[in-house]
Amino acid sequence: MKNVIKSMLLVVMICLAGKMMAAEPIVLNSPNGKLRMTFRLSQNGEPTYQLEYKGKTVIRPSHLGLELKDVHDLQRGFTIKKSTISTFDETWQPVWGETRKIRNHYNEVFVELSQESEERGLNIRFRLYDDGLGFRYEFPLSKNLNYFVIKEEHSQFAMSGDNTAWWIPADYDTQEYNYTESKLSEIREKLPHAYDNNASQTIAGPTCVQTSLQMKTPDGIYLNLHEAALVDYSCMHLNLDDKNMVFESFLTPDARGDKGYLQAPCKSPWRTIIVSDDARDMLSSNLILNLNDPCKLKDTSWIHPVKYVGVWWEMINGMSQWSYTWDLPSVKLDAIDYTKVKPHGKHGANNENVRKYIDFAAANGFDQVLVEGWNIGWEDWFGHEKDDVFDFVTPYPDFDIKALNEYAHSKGVKLLMHHETSGSVRNYERHMEAAYDLMNKYGYDAVKSGYVGNILPRGEHHYGQWMVNHYLYAVKEAAKHHIMVNAHEAVRPTGLCRTYPNLIGNEAARGTEYEAGAGNNVNHTTILPFTRLQGGPMDYTPGIFEMDMSKMNPQNHSHVNSTLARQLALYVTMYSPLQMAADLVENYRKHMAAFQFIKDVAVDWDDSRYLEAEPGQYITVARKAKNSDKWFVGCTAGEKGHVSKLHLDFLDKGRQYVATIYADAKDADYRKNPQAYVISKKTVTARSVLTLRAAAGGGYAISIMPK
Amino acid sequence: MKNVIKSMLLVVMICLAGKMMAAEPIVLNSPNGKLRMTFRLSQNGEPTYQLEYKGKTVIRPSHLGLELKDVHDLQRGFTIKKSTISTFDETWQPVWGETRKIRNHYNEVFVELSQESEERGLNIRFRLYDDGLGFRYEFPLSKNLNYFVIKEEHSQFAMSGDNTAWWIPADYDTQEYNYTESKLSEIREKLPHAYDNNASQTIAGPTCVQTSLQMKTPDGIYLNLHEAALVDYSCMHLNLDDKNMVFESFLTPDARGDKGYLQAPCKSPWRTIIVSDDARDMLSSNLILNLNDPCKLKDTSWIHPVKYVGVWWEMINGMSQWSYTWDLPSVKLDAIDYTKVKPHGKHGANNENVRKYIDFAAANGFDQVLVEGWNIGWEDWFGHEKDDVFDFVTPYPDFDIKALNEYAHSKGVKLLMHHETSGSVRNYERHMEAAYDLMNKYGYDAVKSGYVGNILPRGEHHYGQWMVNHYLYAVKEAAKHHIMVNAHEAVRPTGLCRTYPNLIGNEAARGTEYEAGAGNNVNHTTILPFTRLQGGPMDYTPGIFEMDMSKMNPQNHSHVNSTLARQLALYVTMYSPLQMAADLVENYRKHMAAFQFIKDVAVDWDDSRYLEAEPGQYITVARKAKNSDKWFVGCTAGEKGHVSKLHLDFLDKGRQYVATIYADAKDADYRKNPQAYVISKKTVTARSVLTLRAAAGGGYAISIMPK
Repeated sequence: MKNVIKSMLLVVMICLAGKMMAAEPIVLNSPNGKLRMTFRLSQNGEPTYQLEYKGKTVIRPSHLGLELKDVHDLQRGFTIKKSTISTFDETWQPVWGETRKIRNHYNEVFVELSQESEERGLNIRFRLYDDGLGFRYEFPLSKNLNYFVIKEEHSQFAMSGDNTAWWIPADYDTQEYNYTESKLSEIREKLPHAYDNNASQTIAGPTCVQTSLQMKTPDGIYLNLHEAALVDYSCMHLNLDDKNMVFESFLTPDARGDKGYLQAPCKSPWRTIIVSDDARDMLSSNLILNLNDPCKLKDTSWIHPVKYVGVWWEMINGMSQWSYTWDLPSVKLDAIDYTKVKPHGKHGANNENVRKYIDFAAANGFDQVLVEGWNIGWEDWFGHEKDDVFDFVTPYPDFDIKALNEYAHSKGVKLLMHHETSGSVRNYERHMEAAYDLMNKYGYDAVKSGYVGNILPRGEHHYGQWMVNHYLYAVKEAAKHHIMVNAHEAVRPTGLCRTYPNLIGNEAARGTEYEAGAGNNVNHTTILPFTRLQGGPMDYTPGIFEMDMSKMNPQNHSHVNSTLARQLALYVTMYSPLQMAADLVENYRKHMAAFQFIKDVAVDWDDSRYLEAEPGQYITVARKAKNSDKWFVGCTAGEKGHVSKLHLDFLDKGRQYVATIYADAKDADYRKNPQAYVISKKTVTARSVLTLRAAAGGGYAISIMPK
Repeated sequence: MKNVIKSMLLVVMICLAGKMMAAEPIVLNSPNGKLRMTFRLSQNGEPTYQLEYKGKTVIRPSHLGLELKDVHDLQRGFTIKKSTISTFDETWQPVWGETRKIRNHYNEVFVELSQESEERGLNIRFRLYDDGLGFRYEFPLSKNLNYFVIKEEHSQFAMSGDNTAWWIPADYDTQEYNYTESKLSEIREKLPHAYDNNASQTIAGPTCVQTSLQMKTPDGIYLNLHEAALVDYSCMHLNLDDKNMVFESFLTPDARGDKGYLQAPCKSPWRTIIVSDDARDMLSSNLILNLNDPCKLKDTSWIHPVKYVGVWWEMINGMSQWSYTWDLPSVKLDAIDYTKVKPHGKHGANNENVRKYIDFAAANGFDQVLVEGWNIGWEDWFGHEKDDVFDFVTPYPDFDIKALNEYAHSKGVKLLMHHETSGSVRNYERHMEAAYDLMNKYGYDAVKSGYVGNILPRGEHHYGQWMVNHYLYAVKEAAKHHIMVNAHEAVRPTGLCRTYPNLIGNEAARGTEYEAGAGNNVNHTTILPFTRLQGGPMDYTPGIFEMDMSKMNPQNHSHVNSTLARQLALYVTMYSPLQMAADLVENYRKHMAAFQFIKDVAVDWDDSRYLEAEPGQYITVARKAKNSDKWFVGCTAGEKGHVSKLHLDFLDKGRQYVATIYADAKDADYRKNPQAYVISKKTVTARSVLTLRAAAGGGYAISIMPK
């Protein structure tokens, strides 16, 4: 982001007349005029906004404000002191991303409110883009607003009707649920059945859902509610008043039930509303990235996309283990000499196995090899809320950290570090410097971190301010060591990767790992880009070729709900600068022709075109690889399958390309015949139109190379 | 402690017959036979012990056990699997202490209990010394005892009658209270009036008191209840059943109300009962040190006693400020350029003032100069539960850290570092390595740390397991940097300075600082050695010569409840290897003849003789300076004053000494005439008998130098 290009910067300052009448509205239009936001104070001085799209109401009049602890609320009794309208337009360049350049163009109104009885102010900043609205609270330092504790944030989003929603239950500790598609009015009834068990979970309430929340109005307008730039604040959830169809924010509590500790001057994260009548616009929106601060890292030359394989899926499906021995029901790290214990012989992170993955990575052009379970402590790492659970620096006896890194480097490959914290974050922070130093010493430059289980300090939640603060601390400290972070079980992303582009990945949703257990809904990957991916890339770990887990572990009868062709498509539909080919080397070796797509596909892009999209049904996207003329297309489909008629008009005019199409075979079916695929090649141009069929739970992938 | 001398080690192993009848008691005698402990299981298999001293019951039959969370309790249903009696006798040498050598001589019984219905065990280890009993729980790893959560520890101490007690209310966050002397039966009535306000306080209950608790039975036996070796466990308090006169333990809760998170095999701290019919034995007891592990530091050559002055009392009494400016009601450390703000001119830690203290320290043989308020952030450091409150490395503009350290070193003096955390321990731990590095860089080797205010993570208490873990972490990390620690507002000490002798001081009681505010009871220093000092030395900061605070700060009308002579005595009566001369240079300059005692007095000792003692009334002690023939005597008295008839038979026979006596003048009185003292010299021998009088709230100090 060092090459930010300010193509245009027009700031029009219009200071409206001093104090305004409550009834006098402030109107803000988006640059193209299709969105209109109206702000006013209600009779009792309550801040209220509404939003229209092409003349239709998408957010009915909704109140804004906060409830504080031990003092009067910041909800009513306001007068408008001043409001300032301005315009901003710049084009900036992300370090990595879906497009080479991103335009950040909005009209803004900054409303300065005064609560005179309390001798303090509250400001609200609205930014209206062509693709949606962002607003945030700003807390000016005042006589009676300095240090304060938030009891609750009450930001409303009043829906225009009984929308269809793709939602997961609000939970303070996990997002790893399948999505439920329902009317808003059905949430209460469906919520008790909308989740399964998780290592740490705290369901918030009967009508409470998480963001990013994707909706569609009865008249076909798509609406997405989320937040941007979640920094030093608790993560927001939404509670639905299902009589009036009004969502209201609530925050993740801390151990005492408080919602946030703030020090003025400060600001809340942005609350975001992405709006369009074309579902594809939801996916191409950069509103959330644009609402984040520009890159704060001076040097980003060490940040790069990563395509990787790893010693991981074999533990997930139960073939091998993270642990080294069965003999230690209770581990105290300092007290055990692992060279003296009896190995169980199922330890995945052993020298031989890791070398096999290094060889495979090197032979097939992968950047890195993830190895989980390399460090001591996995015998009792989970479920005990154990404080000193890992030291992050001591390998098991059969993992020669020096030799393996040297071997990898000799083949042009790096190892990818793994730091599972087991939720014990004081322990992680105490060891963090030594852990990052170790990475620097052996030449690791990326870490997958994990926060499985309940948080220590006990009583804190994964999504509270305490942990939000920790996750960013880990990313900032990593940056000092030129280390990229891929945090799992952390808070869902909110576009912070713009500001800290070494945050190259997150989990924060139900990933492929569940396919080796309870399973993912067949349409899961047609929803995630509308929801979870709004905030930033996901380390979804696609690329499973063997859908039948019992082939690897006879005790495991899980089945991956996808065709093989769709697994290829996910490298394009699930945008991420960090992509894993998650399956075993042995499974890839049986399908090297299909694997060619994973070898070829890029992980960083000059351009992205969303060609078709409907949440829960299908997504088709074409992307142009960075600094290249190669294009890649992916389509993922749900239960009904999908037929595409693709116009390749994004290709250079007059140029010939070779398209290699990896498609479901005619008899493909995600349940019964997932490995049935057909690979075909044809010459295409910008005038070509391809008709392609995705099976139920299927999809297709296309590489398009200039001739 | 590297020179531990094992003078004698007799271990007699008597394995009693396998399983025992519930009625069959195990009897353990102390080496001199005066104490007898009897252990048995009650009818329902409940562990029960009692204690007799010279044939009199001091602890009636009392139950032992723990209540666990989510599983059956560890309280009853036990059988005795095995019990092992042994004897231990060794003499060890502390790095610093009241005596050059300490004898550790006890008889032990290790009782292995089995709770067969739960397939788990619980062991209790009793050590009976001539001066008291220690016992602890040991949790062997069993099928159903691995990771477990303590709901409560129920260790009883059934009193033999309505003892007199010197107590403070149980509180999870502070011990900074005056002691109340009362019958046990009066605690309930007096407790509501037994405390004043503190920066962080959580009173536990109407009949709950803290340890170390000093008592005296109606028949004149002194009894002290405390704990030893508090490591990775929550601090214990005592709840009195005041109908039956039974104390029962309860632990400090965490944010969720749980009391402890343990992983077997592990053990509780020792619960200690010191017993004697001579009050002086309570003070000379080493039972708590002996129950701690031997020194774990390999090299202790860098650890040394410290006599210091400092820039501190002037802030405590309000003459000057820790802060630098009035202009910052809300500080964000990264956002403020302190060179641009307007100084208020009252900042104590300025170059000129610090140089004055360095000069004074050098001229009078002090080792170090404490400077508080040297680092940025003091403008809003307190009362906000602020996370990023200090960085521990950035000085105010008027504190030239490099130049001042160089100046001090050029005069043979060191500066003493100050780390106030404001209770924000995540912040402290994040900066700890850099903070200790800074100390190493500039040549500091000791730090006074502070934990004023509520703890972050919020919901944790100063005395819970989380914080107990932190305090020791800070001490261990400091040891790696060869740094000595003097922690204020930390958990009360339990003899850990034997194991980690770089822990040279603690506060954990009401110190001299209160004399500049609400005041200390006049007999406070006649109680502290019986209570607070049982666990380790206190940084009491004596040496106040000007008792009238308004002389320094006209707004402050506090008065120190002591005569000047008694202030000298405290350097002897309040044993500590770390002693401050706390008053202002200006006040000492007015009384340089009296100040001579503070210059002369040692802070490390070959021998200590408690000559007279009665809690709440008087303590007189003589100590022989380490590697020297000099003796120092101190006497502190309460409201009634005290007359001593001192036999100097501890002196070398046939040798002549010059005794310099710093005594209250005849008209001295702590309220009206505190500065009236008389200094006299006389030649003394081992046959001399001195009759000396301490005024009300007075005392005397004597230096005895060989001729």
